[in-house]
Amino acid sequence: MSGHKIVFTPSGKRGVVAAGTTLLEAARTFGVDLDSVCGGRGICGRCQVVPTFGSFAKHGIESQAEHLNAPNEVEARYATRKPLAEGRRLGCQCKVSGNLVVDVPESSQVHRQVVRKRAEVRAVTVDPVVRPLYLEVEEPDMHHPSGDWERVLTALASQWEIDTRAVTIAPTALDELQTALRAGKWKVTVALHEERHGATTTGHRVLAVRAGFHDTFYGVAIDIGSTTIACHLVRLADGEVVASSGAMNPQIRFGEDLMSRVSYVMMNEGGEAELTQVVREAADTAIAETLTEAEVDTKDLVAMVFVGNPVMHHLFLGLNPVELGGAPFALALNSSITTPATSLGLTQGAGAIAYLLPCIAGHVGADCAAVILSETPHTRDEITLVVDVGTNAEIVLGNKERVLACSSPTGPAFEGAQISCGQRAAPGAIERVRIDRETYEPRFRVIGSEKWSDEEGFAEEVAKLGGVTGVCGSGIIEVLAELFLSGVILTDGTIDGRLSDRCERIVSEGRTFAYSLYEPSEAEAPTLRITQNDVRAIQLAKAALYAGVRLLMDRRGVEQVERIQLAGAFGSHIDVRYAMALGMVPDCPLDKTSGAGNAAGEGARIALVNRSARAEIEEVVRRVEKIETAVEPRFQEHFVAAMAFPHATAPFPNLAKTLHLPPKSAPPASTNGDSTGARGGRRRRRN
Amino acid sequence: MSGHKIVFTPSGKRGVVAAGTTLLEAARTFGVDLDSVCGGRGICGRCQVVPTFGSFAKHGIESQAEHLNAPNEVEARYATRKPLAEGRRLGCQCKVSGNLVVDVPESSQVHRQVVRKRAEVRAVTVDPVVRPLYLEVEEPDMHHPSGDWERVLTALASQWEIDTRAVTIAPTALDELQTALRAGKWKVTVALHEERHGATTTGHRVLAVRAGFHDTFYGVAIDIGSTTIACHLVRLADGEVVASSGAMNPQIRFGEDLMSRVSYVMMNEGGEAELTQVVREAADTAIAETLTEAEVDTKDLVAMVFVGNPVMHHLFLGLNPVELGGAPFALALNSSITTPATSLGLTQGAGAIAYLLPCIAGHVGADCAAVILSETPHTRDEITLVVDVGTNAEIVLGNKERVLACSSPTGPAFEGAQISCGQRAAPGAIERVRIDRETYEPRFRVIGSEKWSDEEGFAEEVAKLGGVTGVCGSGIIEVLAELFLSGVILTDGTIDGRLSDRCERIVSEGRTFAYSLYEPSEAEAPTLRITQNDVRAIQLAKAALYAGVRLLMDRRGVEQVERIQLAGAFGSHIDVRYAMALGMVPDCPLDKTSGAGNAAGEGARIALVNRSARAEIEEVVRRVEKIETAVEPRFQEHFVAAMAFPHATAPFPNLAKTLHLPPKSAPPASTNGDSTGARGGRRRRRN
Repeated sequence: MSGHKIVFTPSGKRGVVAAGTTLLEAARTFGVDLDSVCGGRGICGRCQVVPTFGSFAKHGIESQAEHLNAPNEVEARYATRKPLAEGRRLGCQCKVSGNLVVDVPESSQVHRQVVRKRAEVRAVTVDPVVRPLYLEVEEPDMHHPSGDWERVLTALASQWEIDTRAVTIAPTALDELQTALRAGKWKVTVALHEERHGATTTGHRVLAVRAGFHDTFYGVAIDIGSTTIACHLVRLADGEVVASSGAMNPQIRFGEDLMSRVSYVMMNEGGEAELTQVVREAADTAIAETLTEAEVDTKDLVAMVFVGNPVMHHLFLGLNPVELGGAPFALALNSSITTPATSLGLTQGAGAIAYLLPCIAGHVGADCAAVILSETPHTRDEITLVVDVGTNAEIVLGNKERVLACSSPTGPAFEGAQISCGQRAAPGAIERVRIDRETYEPRFRVIGSEKWSDEEGFAEEVAKLGGVTGVCGSGIIEVLAELFLSGVILTDGTIDGRLSDRCERIVSEGRTFAYSLYEPSEAEAPTLRITQNDVRAIQLAKAALYAGVRLLMDRRGVEQVERIQLAGAFGSHIDVRYAMALGMVPDCPLDKTSGAGNAAGEGARIALVNRSARAEIEEVVRRVEKIETAVEPRFQEHFVAAMAFPHATAPFPNLAKTLHLPPKSAPPASTNGDSTGARGGRRRRRN
Repeated sequence: MSGHKIVFTPSGKRGVVAAGTTLLEAARTFGVDLDSVCGGRGICGRCQVVPTFGSFAKHGIESQAEHLNAPNEVEARYATRKPLAEGRRLGCQCKVSGNLVVDVPESSQVHRQVVRKRAEVRAVTVDPVVRPLYLEVEEPDMHHPSGDWERVLTALASQWEIDTRAVTIAPTALDELQTALRAGKWKVTVALHEERHGATTTGHRVLAVRAGFHDTFYGVAIDIGSTTIACHLVRLADGEVVASSGAMNPQIRFGEDLMSRVSYVMMNEGGEAELTQVVREAADTAIAETLTEAEVDTKDLVAMVFVGNPVMHHLFLGLNPVELGGAPFALALNSSITTPATSLGLTQGAGAIAYLLPCIAGHVGADCAAVILSETPHTRDEITLVVDVGTNAEIVLGNKERVLACSSPTGPAFEGAQISCGQRAAPGAIERVRIDRETYEPRFRVIGSEKWSDEEGFAEEVAKLGGVTGVCGSGIIEVLAELFLSGVILTDGTIDGRLSDRCERIVSEGRTFAYSLYEPSEAEAPTLRITQNDVRAIQLAKAALYAGVRLLMDRRGVEQVERIQLAGAFGSHIDVRYAMALGMVPDCPLDKTSGAGNAAGEGARIALVNRSARAEIEEVVRRVEKIETAVEPRFQEHFVAAMAFPHATAPFPNLAKTLHLPPKSAPPASTNGDSTGARGGRRRRRN
């Protein structure tokens, strides 16, 4: 019996098989990426292929319809449940009797592509952490007593060629097993997790067992922020987000910022356990909400990925964070963790395996590792700056040769805290501002309305939102930048009181001046003013951020960055031009500048669906050069130099093309007596 | 530089080492069993050796005192804390400069012998599941940020040559790590668990971390019985039991016997979780009690072994036991389980690794596996019968060639339940009985007193105990056997009413007769009678037990057993001669018959301290031939045949030597109308 030549497209993988071999078997033999959950029983429909017929000169093949069997009963039965598209066959039912060219559509590949919304990030394919495997299990026989579990192992070995010497099962899955086997009449689908050390498979673990054929399992990607916990429920087979939920981090009641929470732990016996418990409960609730929203059974939740800053990471793991509160800022551990979800006190997904990305350093967390995984500075040719702007900015700089990271204590000013008119981003908050260069009159937009304040109908729309309530982070950046570009704020940050003569919006507040952004007609509504203190708070924050960036540039030996990605809710929302105008970030071609959205959450999703991404980020984190700004003398120098708008050390040729930058003005004589804020030294604010 | 020849006794291991090598290093090189916790720093004192000097012709060695350095400062410092016995040196401080003969005392061996109280069982050595390792860890450096954990790994690799690619750490240990490192000034002792698949080491896990040098860790061996939970706290280094505790199994409130508890689960939504929770809490409490008693810190508890019958095993694991309640009596799993103690809902020993011995079959549990491990029928030449007598008797028969096991539904009669005057073994219960062959007058002893009832001072002693309160299991066996040997009970089990004429103790109770064992003078105290129903209950129980034994003998192809070991509280307490006289067990040389005490608990202790014992019992359990009595037609035949005292099929030549056996009497005509009990078919009672 001579063999038949089979060519799979688009991979081009090929080989010769004996007559009667199925296309699924041939694909496995040749290492073609063709999916199967049911193991060739014609149930799952995952192995669909498109045999193509004709003369393929380049393959030296005559591929003919007679070279495989006509669609059989099994395929007919499958098609009654789920129609097969024209030309498609079930690979497991096609028996070869001659040369063939066979196309594998993307939807039939295990390693299909994950949907990503942004063009500038690399493609991610599925590399499953957990695989569904359908099994037909022997029934128990009291004359040869054996456990249900041991008969499942036998099926795993014989039907999927798993080395069962090192297969374990999650306790809840073991309990489900008995019911599932009987409900499924000894046919079950298991969710099998492959355990690895590096690239070596060391064993497997069954995380869930469902009766009969059951091919869809889920995972959650969770970003535990100091303020909010964001959870995405993801279908593991294709990385699709099927539901999302967000919740406040209930630890806020123990302190708004991280340092107050660390202090709480230091001052209160059992405080650590308390903080751990509330954050775990909140994560558990967030998971439950996504499951409810997507109508997914908690038993189908088999994988979890968590990211967070070092303090959140430690508290979520049940580790005491106090060492992170002082030098040498020692992490309890800096490697990744793979652990049963139950060991984290979670009740949802009781069989699931949780993965925590590694923290990078005492102030640079697993959330930053996730940002790297999403934004991939380590794979780019361009010197790339990635900033995740939170109350602590986590800063990554580098390219495929070297990557550096640090964090900088920007404080909460960017998020609207410490600003007299500041508020969180919410409907009614001013988010966009323009100021007339001559009259200093403002125009603005608020969250929840598309209209500018000088457009018709604005007042009505805003009234529906409950009025103008404050200014959110991006609004503050814009109003400050516009005031600076208009000359109301001088380069040293002083609000120029000399202008109060010709503009009523510049008002005296004792020894300093303020800019009145919004003066409502109704008495109850707040007057929104930008005070001198507000400017000082932003100066401190942006100087800290820029100093961190500059420090990494020094260490990396570059004078310019070639790409900037701003991550996080605030970072994604601000107009990068204004950020540059204020000197938050260095100059960069504007078309190489973008918001990265929730890059930490996106990185968590990648680690959830792509196993190799875990190994990749672990390796990158090990070689990232970690810079501790707290002990870098140059940080302080950069910080002081960066207090000015836009500071002396930063040329902005790219920015100058789009925004009118004022001529460099010398700091005026201290007309209104306030420059102490700007010289007030560095506040170390770690939160 | 030529080498020096070193011979270690008693092992005889030898080799040549370079000058300057320490004796500890030499021992490691030659594979000599020499302990060390501190890794050669002269702290632990575990590597003590006795260099012996003289001319050793058989080794071809002249061993001289000058061939090693004089005791050094480190040894002097050690001796101030703990004196070194005459002639002893710390192996890690002895540097070789010539040929030597060195004795390793047993106390310096890792594999030292475990104390066992009984002569007839094999010796057990320590083969540690968890080893204490002392480490000196690098301090954190904020310029090269690394986790505490990663620096511990570095120390494990460099100081103990552990392959750290596959080392994990228990969550609680990770939390302790930070405090311990700082409290111990970067010196800690870790409890390291070696993970194996079969004989291959697959990884390690740190279960506990203690500040500084800390060499003693503990384990618990726990037998979860249907009625009681027994816990022993064991020092892992030498297997010594340092504290014990026992508690009632709180599941009793859901049903006295196992089948009522299985029914409870079937009838009540969530009943399984409820039963699991109470038994786990009780185990947790029992553990806590032993820790308190021995003043051991719960953080030093790093290993646990659990045994129990299949229903207890499943419920303790959180598995639904209902499948065990009906054919085919399928176990959820029949292999051993190694799992973190926290995954079993335990709060004590939060870092500990728990091991559950494998169940053998649906009615033959992990407790029976532990009995095998303790009593080792599988290593003996003699055909050995081991019976663990509980409400379900677990029966093992065989020798090193083949071992068989089954369980038999004896019911609770042996434990005093279902017996009119029966009670649990407790002070005041009659435990020993003798009956005059002529007058039928009884003498007896009660638990709590050494005096027989016809001895002076008995009444006073018993009054202190609160009077004679009932008859416990062993008392029931003895009174029935004595009544049978006296002729009061006939071979078919009938109490011979014809004797009531000449003895007031034989009293009529309607259609049957009873024997009055105890008639107190005070009105309140109970009259203790052996009724016809009591005899029937014991007949059913002993027939079930014997039928099980007989079935295994058939299968094994033997007509006699050569050794009998009775395990369990009841089994150990009864006089084997009386058990034989009643036909509970087959005849056997009496010097080959013994009580095995709490063999299940003892087996658990062996598995706790000896790692290889786990592999051994797993292998034995796989090859034990499992017999399901429920579906064996011959069981029923044997059962019916075994109802008589002593039954027709059993010759008792050995017993006849020590007890006067009555001539075989034909069953009398049914004078008192009751023989239905004896013919009443087999009750399947699974508890």
